Amino acid sequence: MSKVKIDISVSLDGYVAGPDPSLDDPLGKGGEQLHEWVVGLAAWRKPHGLEGGETNQDSEVVEELTAGLGATAMGRRMFSGGSGPWEEDPNANGWWGAEPPFRHPVFVLTHHPRERLEMKGGTTFEFVTDGVEAALERARVAADGKDVNVSGGADAVQQCLNARLVDEMQLHVVPVALGSGRRLLDGLDPAIRFEIDRVIDSPSVTHLRYRVS
Amino acid sequence: MSKVKIDISVSLDGYVAGPDPSLDDPLGKGGEQLHEWVVGLAAWRKPHGLEGGETNQDSEVVEELTAGLGATAMGRRMFSGGSGPWEEDPNANGWWGAEPPFRHPVFVLTHHPRERLEMKGGTTFEFVTDGVEAALERARVAADGKDVNVSGGADAVQQCLNARLVDEMQLHVVPVALGSGRRLLDGLDPAIRFEIDRVIDSPSVTHLRYRVS
Repeated sequence: MSKVKIDISVSLDGYVAGPDPSLDDPLGKGGEQLHEWVVGLAAWRKPHGLEGGETNQDSEVVEELTAGLGATAMGRRMFSGGSGPWEEDPNANGWWGAEPPFRHPVFVLTHHPRERLEMKGGTTFEFVTDGVEAALERARVAADGKDVNVSGGADAVQQCLNARLVDEMQLHVVPVALGSGRRLLDGLDPAIRFEIDRVIDSPSVTHLRYRVS
Repeated sequence: MSKVKIDISVSLDGYVAGPDPSLDDPLGKGGEQLHEWVVGLAAWRKPHGLEGGETNQDSEVVEELTAGLGATAMGRRMFSGGSGPWEEDPNANGWWGAEPPFRHPVFVLTHHPRERLEMKGGTTFEFVTDGVEAALERARVAADGKDVNVSGGADAVQQCLNARLVDEMQLHVVPVALGSGRRLLDGLDPAIRFEIDRVIDSPSVTHLRYRVS
């Protein structure tokens, strides 16, 4: 049975992006620090078409995640490059380049209908305008028994959690403070039940995995 | 050399108290859940004058903390019983009873001068009106080589972190969402450096300890 998973890097103070995002700095001030732990890993570099990289206790977490996935769901701002001044343009292109790292179907939550995009390397982007439930249902069908990853941003994560569509949430807690920006867990329904499933720690990040019900 | 430590239970979404605190419910709606992991432990019950209790992987964390402490600093709302309608009364008594569990000097950050209180069992409350730096300096002297604990609330923690007065922060992350309330890590200075020091996990809580500089 395919699961719906959230897997996201978050600062110690709970942000997935810092303040003042811009085209040059789509993750906001300081936001890049949230992904430093992953971009040096061989397990991340390979699907991004890059050679080399480290193998350490964080690699297992990344390998396990990418291996099991059959589809991804994301918010439109995440598709178009974070939040920022350009988010007003509903047809803005993704920042994922010609050969995005997903290599499977990606469903983008949006209010603006748009043609499906077929990218190099097996990634497709489909734009879903009839809500988060419909997007995850289509992602689940496309995943064909594999898991569905809700990769962000914060709004998409909150919508999926509050609509009780998530089976598992893994936070990669990075020991930095961003001070302000976009908070991941805002306005959650207190009735959501979390159970600690697994904790893996390394010198640079702590991976907290929860079962959600 | 004595250290200044923060040690505090926090929800998965980063709150130290839920919404709508009241006299009956000083930690706000759902806030009691943050302390369920600790109140059943023998290591917590003993200093609170209670018998029995469990010993498990969380006990070590609690024993280690209480053993090394020589003084505590806290905000006035934490002294008087959380935030709530009664916080307008600067002379409100603490909610800690006649024999508080600290058994060492406690320094309360406040704007309102007040006489020192001497309680049963070795706890004293002193009210410090000249700022967080002065309070921690007095606590450090009183601790006499042992550690100083900043026990909360959120405002006191933020002030101490932003004034660079903290050596170590341990968060006890409880797998519940409170949805709203009083957030612990709000408005932090992004220049504060955190380093992962130790992670201990149990089925009910994850203890994340950071060195702060």
